[in-house]
Parts: sequence; structure tokens; C-alpha cells
Amino acid sequence: MPIKAKGLLIVVTGPSAVGKGTICRALLQEAPDIRFSVSVTTRPARPGEVHGVEYFFCSHREFEQKIKAGELLEWAEVYGNYYGTPRQYVEEVTNAGQSVILDIDMVGARAVRSQYPGAVSVFVIPPSMEALRQRILGRGTESDEAVQRRLAEAPKWIEEGLNYEYVVVNDDLTAAVGHLRSVVNAEMSRTARQGGALIRRLLEKGELD
Amino acid sequence: MPIKAKGLLIVVTGPSAVGKGTICRALLQEAPDIRFSVSVTTRPARPGEVHGVEYFFCSHREFEQKIKAGELLEWAEVYGNYYGTPRQYVEEVTNAGQSVILDIDMVGARAVRSQYPGAVSVFVIPPSMEALRQRILGRGTESDEAVQRRLAEAPKWIEEGLNYEYVVVNDDLTAAVGHLRSVVNAEMSRTARQGGALIRRLLEKGELD
Repeated sequence: MPIKAKGLLIVVTGPSAVGKGTICRALLQEAPDIRFSVSVTTRPARPGEVHGVEYFFCSHREFEQKIKAGELLEWAEVYGNYYGTPRQYVEEVTNAGQSVILDIDMVGARAVRSQYPGAVSVFVIPPSMEALRQRILGRGTESDEAVQRRLAEAPKWIEEGLNYEYVVVNDDLTAAVGHLRSVVNAEMSRTARQGGALIRRLLEKGELD
Repeated sequence: MPIKAKGLLIVVTGPSAVGKGTICRALLQEAPDIRFSVSVTTRPARPGEVHGVEYFFCSHREFEQKIKAGELLEWAEVYGNYYGTPRQYVEEVTNAGQSVILDIDMVGARAVRSQYPGAVSVFVIPPSMEALRQRILGRGTESDEAVQRRLAEAPKWIEEGLNYEYVVVNDDLTAAVGHLRSVVNAEMSRTARQGGALIRRLLEKGELD
């Protein structure tokens, strides 16, 4: 009896403010087969952000309790705030054969990839450094100091993209979402993932369903 | 100065009569960025096939001259006929940065992959063994003996698909073409192919164009 393939764990990351969250949410709206892992954070909610949608917001003290209880797949302190990924949700979804997408910063992405070498890693880049600069400035929710730090560190972060499997340019949103969808579809067709199971099922049962 | 990425060499194969040619031609109609490599063969043209479109048709003698002149990237004898891929076209197109798709049988695919380890390999499977049987019978252009041989050998060929990177099911044509397109897009986004060049260009020039 063929073993059901595990779902994909798709890690989407990129430099701060590149728009990876927007791409992931747009993909999820048109792809009901992909689930989204909501992160936990201690950073304050930005205007319009909803608890349980963009993030689970919690206090530093609550976050540290989650760390101690082993409830986080990865966590990191970035610019003075904690960010983490609840472990249970990701494991339940992928074990059930569904794919889950993680929209996380690069520190978290590194931690997840070291634990899940089979994770699909996608790095989002801006069409130009100037476009990234405008996005960082345009966000308007952070201190001047934080903005300057993000700008100064951008090239270093972008260079880290060379260690990721796939690069998606966030120029046109529709095109970027299409590329991310292609990556997910292609990975599902990989023989080492779903493809091998399909061939074995066809030879064993004579059909796929 | 960043080096322009080479185009992809995409090898599409699968068991006889699975419909890989139909999928490739449908993809090419909607993807003007992908070129198609037309094979040379000594097998007789089927009704409706046009010289230079489905194949370049030639005599056994002409084919053997091409072999001697080193003009073929790969060639094989299958069911008593020669099939081959002109070398020059594939090299010119990929060196110019364009991707080229090869719709070839599994014997030829093996030869190309051994020469081009970077080739993207896609294996097309039918939704069921019965569907494949109907397609082989329905073609109606071959001797009973050839049909029986194809049917008997189908499971062995399908098993070979486990050695290919991607598996695409030819159930619904539109879906199959979409999957093949996803594989091409995803491979173009791979850091080891276009993605790394994009990141280097962004860091060097500050923009992608």
C-alpha cells in the first residue's frame, strides 16, 4: 500500500519590507490546498493587523513560557522583539499530507531549514534597491533608527538569498504570486515527493485514484 | 558583469502514446519564451504529420550520415526506426539564454541526460493503465505486433519514471500543460539557474534591468 506523501513545508523569506507577506496572503486566497502558519510575536500590532490573522500577539513573558514549554518550531529575537512559529500546527498539517507555507524572517528561516532539510525555500527580492528603500520608508510604522538599520543591512540580507532554492522577484504582485504557485506545483510534481508515489500507485493499482 | 544564465534544456518523456507530444505542443502555443527542438526520424510520417513540424523525416541512409558527421545530440533505434536530436539547434538556443524543450522517447532521454546533467527531466504518466491501453489501441497506425509489444512493455517503461525529476499526469490536457509550465517557471526561479544571477545583478547594479 503506497504511503501518502507528506505535505510540503514552504519557507518564504526575504529582506525586511520586501512584501513577502502580501505575496503569501494573495497565494493563499487562490490556493485552498495550501495552509498558512501564523507566527507568534511580541512586536506591537500595526494598524489593521488582527490577532490570529497576521500574527498571534503576546507579551515577552508569555513568549518565554512558550519557549520553555518547547511549543515553538523556531524563534528568534529581531530588532528587540520575539518572533516564533508554533510547532504543533505545522507538524499536524504536513503529516496529514497538506502543504503549509511559512512567511518568516531570515533568522527564523535558517532555523526551520536546519530542522527540516526537505523544506522548500523561497527568497523574495525587490526589483531594485530603490524600490526596497521606498517600501521601508513608506511603511511609516517604525522609528528612524529602525528604518536606517533596515536600509543599511539590506544588501547583506539580500546576499543571503544565494543560499535559498528559489528566487521570486516582487515586482508585479500577480506575477510574483504566479511564480510562487509554480514553485509549489513543481515541488509537488517532484518524483522524490508526490511523483514517486503516483508512479508506484499506477503500477500497483493500475490507476491513480 | 553578471554572466547571462543559460537557457533550460527540458527533456519531456514518458511511455509510448502517453500524449507527451500533445502536452509539449500545447505548452509551446502559450509560451513564446520556450523553443521546441524538432527531432529527426526515419519512421514514416503518420497522417497529418508535417516535415519540420512534428519531425524531420529522412531515410536510413541519410540518418546514418548524420550520425557519422556528429550532427546528433542523441540518437537511438526504437522499434526498427531511428530517432535523433539535432545538436546545433539545442546548443545555439540554450547558449543564447532561451529554453528549449525536447519531446523524446526514453532511450533518447537517457542519452541526453547523461550528456547534460543540468537538464530538467519530466516524465509523463497516464491516469490509468487502461487509459494508456486505449490510447495505444486508438492510435491505429501500427501493426498488431507493435501494439502488443507496447502494451506488454508499458509497466517497465513507467517504472523508469522513478528516475526522473518531475512527474506530470496526463489526465486533463489543460492541467497537464499547467503543471509542465509550473516546472519550467520554478526551474527558472532556481537560485542555481536564474535566481543567483538575479541576486548578483541586484546587488551590483541596484536593479534588475
